[in-house]
Amino acid sequence: MENSPRSVPRTLASRAHVVIIGGGFAGVAVAKGLSDRDIRVTIIDQHNFHTFVPLLYQVATAGLEPADVAFPIRTIFGHAKNVRFRHGRVRSVDQSRNLVVLGDGSQIDYDHLVVATGATAAFFGVPGASLFAMPLYTLSDARRLRNRLLLILEETEVRGEIDGALAQLTFVVVGGGPTGVETSGALTELIQIAIKRDGLRLDPERIRVVLVDMAPRLLTAFPERASDYAKRQLESSGVEVQFGRSVVGIDEHSIHFGDGERVECAAVIWAAGVSAGDALPHDLASTSGPGGRVLVGGDLRLLGSANVWAVGDAAAVPLSDGAFCAQLAPVAIQSGRHCAEQILHVVHGEATTDFRYHDKGIMATIGRNAAVAELPHGVVVKGRLGWLAWLGLHLWYLVGFRNRLRVFINWTWRYFDWPSGPRLIVADAETVE
Amino acid sequence: MENSPRSVPRTLASRAHVVIIGGGFAGVAVAKGLSDRDIRVTIIDQHNFHTFVPLLYQVATAGLEPADVAFPIRTIFGHAKNVRFRHGRVRSVDQSRNLVVLGDGSQIDYDHLVVATGATAAFFGVPGASLFAMPLYTLSDARRLRNRLLLILEETEVRGEIDGALAQLTFVVVGGGPTGVETSGALTELIQIAIKRDGLRLDPERIRVVLVDMAPRLLTAFPERASDYAKRQLESSGVEVQFGRSVVGIDEHSIHFGDGERVECAAVIWAAGVSAGDALPHDLASTSGPGGRVLVGGDLRLLGSANVWAVGDAAAVPLSDGAFCAQLAPVAIQSGRHCAEQILHVVHGEATTDFRYHDKGIMATIGRNAAVAELPHGVVVKGRLGWLAWLGLHLWYLVGFRNRLRVFINWTWRYFDWPSGPRLIVADAETVE
Repeated sequence: MENSPRSVPRTLASRAHVVIIGGGFAGVAVAKGLSDRDIRVTIIDQHNFHTFVPLLYQVATAGLEPADVAFPIRTIFGHAKNVRFRHGRVRSVDQSRNLVVLGDGSQIDYDHLVVATGATAAFFGVPGASLFAMPLYTLSDARRLRNRLLLILEETEVRGEIDGALAQLTFVVVGGGPTGVETSGALTELIQIAIKRDGLRLDPERIRVVLVDMAPRLLTAFPERASDYAKRQLESSGVEVQFGRSVVGIDEHSIHFGDGERVECAAVIWAAGVSAGDALPHDLASTSGPGGRVLVGGDLRLLGSANVWAVGDAAAVPLSDGAFCAQLAPVAIQSGRHCAEQILHVVHGEATTDFRYHDKGIMATIGRNAAVAELPHGVVVKGRLGWLAWLGLHLWYLVGFRNRLRVFINWTWRYFDWPSGPRLIVADAETVE
Repeated sequence: MENSPRSVPRTLASRAHVVIIGGGFAGVAVAKGLSDRDIRVTIIDQHNFHTFVPLLYQVATAGLEPADVAFPIRTIFGHAKNVRFRHGRVRSVDQSRNLVVLGDGSQIDYDHLVVATGATAAFFGVPGASLFAMPLYTLSDARRLRNRLLLILEETEVRGEIDGALAQLTFVVVGGGPTGVETSGALTELIQIAIKRDGLRLDPERIRVVLVDMAPRLLTAFPERASDYAKRQLESSGVEVQFGRSVVGIDEHSIHFGDGERVECAAVIWAAGVSAGDALPHDLASTSGPGGRVLVGGDLRLLGSANVWAVGDAAAVPLSDGAFCAQLAPVAIQSGRHCAEQILHVVHGEATTDFRYHDKGIMATIGRNAAVAELPHGVVVKGRLGWLAWLGLHLWYLVGFRNRLRVFINWTWRYFDWPSGPRLIVADAETVE
């Protein structure tokens, strides 16, 4: 249908149909690049909302509400007449017939398919990890972790009361990347607030937050002085940082290290890495490369395919030096935009161009007033200035002005240490015995 | 221990211990009345938060977020050194030994016990109602209903697409009291927003919201002209109002009426009434009176008990004419305050006084710009003025300045019809097939 004569206005139904699996950063960027163009677009997602993943750790530590970091996908495209949303889970993809099959059995045919399925936590085969460690990659992960953390604090107080002494408590965060650093910093803040504001009778000296990593430093993607700074900041807020520790097992109440040590802990938070493989429809997993990611050419098309594309965390996007792009939000957004342009090129019979990542820097926050950013050319910004840059950038990238306003209010509140906050235990099974 | 000599400063442990079961309006009012007094107070609740029940219907219709109408109980009393919170469910009460037994087996002894357990939806033995109708009395009810409503809208669009025509859809709201009126009005608004802002391809003409009641008019607690006004307002916003209809059965896809009619519907929202009995610990249920409520004397003590009290929806609070107080938030707050005063009287060896309800009026809102209030002396306020009064009063009574600010922002947003809003499907089982 790409060949219909230009003089005849094409009806909506006769336009090329682009199906995007996944409404994360990458999928939304593709759809935005195609909105109000001469194309039909369908976004399929098992959730009806887009999640701002970089702030999930704040939902997990009761600094933000789920609605602050999530936005209905329909609402993002409410005014784009050519973009539709389909709430559903993709069961399989039939590339020979250009069909996507959903969990309810219904079929959606496509002219172009964009795989933007993201990634899920990678447990690297560590026994017990997938059962007992708590990942932090989806909104429900974050809600589950928050409920768990708050319940543990409640239970610890009661236990201390029964035993007649303040109880001991250890949280272990596995992984010294941005998620691990941010989560452990925010967790110490949550504990301080729970004691100071909520009157929980816990002994701050007996509550440990331990951040472990195999590597010899934090934030290995950053220059070494940024790593040192992050370590100092975390330690000053009460986090114990342990390097060179490999995790060999996790059970309900403890974590086992490669050196034989077993540490009793109330919860293990898993921030050790992600894999794209489990999120992919099975049919595509066979073509996957590093980290379970789909191998794509420079123009982001699946190797060997003319009309299937992959973007964001799901794609192994090649760099010029033979390596692959990191799984970062800016890569997802930029690859999504590029993919939309290339699909338009193909639909209009034009040649595609290769994706090039424009590195504008990376950043991580450690706590109030402390963040670290690496800008291009090795410039490192840290401290309060880095933190303000972090705040501004994250507010800017949040979808929807109202979300920005709400997050701004929440942050202001916590910054000035005012008492209220979303420390609600609101699982569906929200009652206790 | 009430007799310890006044000249010796009593230690915290030697003070009279008041245990309050329930952290709703009534329980919180009791604890506030006792905070910073010469008393130890423990509030037990199965949720760690206080819920602002009058606005739950807005959470259910995606106008507000759970955190907007809920507030951690610990945070409310964070600064009151004599008030403690215990997260747990009461299994039984042993009045002969002055003991409360929790679900985990732990025991808490009391000098005075306050039953503030509230009420739950009453299904009046209608077959299928407890299984298939959706009540709206707790935060999890509200979240469940919202997920269900949004999922139904998504499914209806898909169904319409498969059938090639816009699908039909009926929601039935049972009960013409304030909750039923408010919910049906808000539901029509949600549907309009979903079509207008989220691009859901639904035919407003084929989506019915039907409000049914046995009585011949809405809001029977109000004067007749208020009822007429509410009916006109609801009908102008698209709600069908049907009187004299008794519900005799509900199944997964339909509702059955006493006249033999069976109406297919996607969801039945149950706002037909509440019962206090199911919320009570069994040991107290035996003494219950009308609506499963505990019978109390004029001073709010259980009939025949010297140190067990009941307040709010859980109590059948006698009026001077032999009737009982309605189950309303103002009654809960006032009875809670009165109970705290009486406990202080008893602890100090003074005589108790009888509770008198000060009726400051009742109000209900129907939609944007439309509310109705009955003030004392039969004064009825309606329309935009009533609505503004409703807004102000509800904002005022919300716990916590931040909640007020957030609710104000959310309301402003919806009033001016701005696109974003918390229309997220966020059940724990938040994925679909």
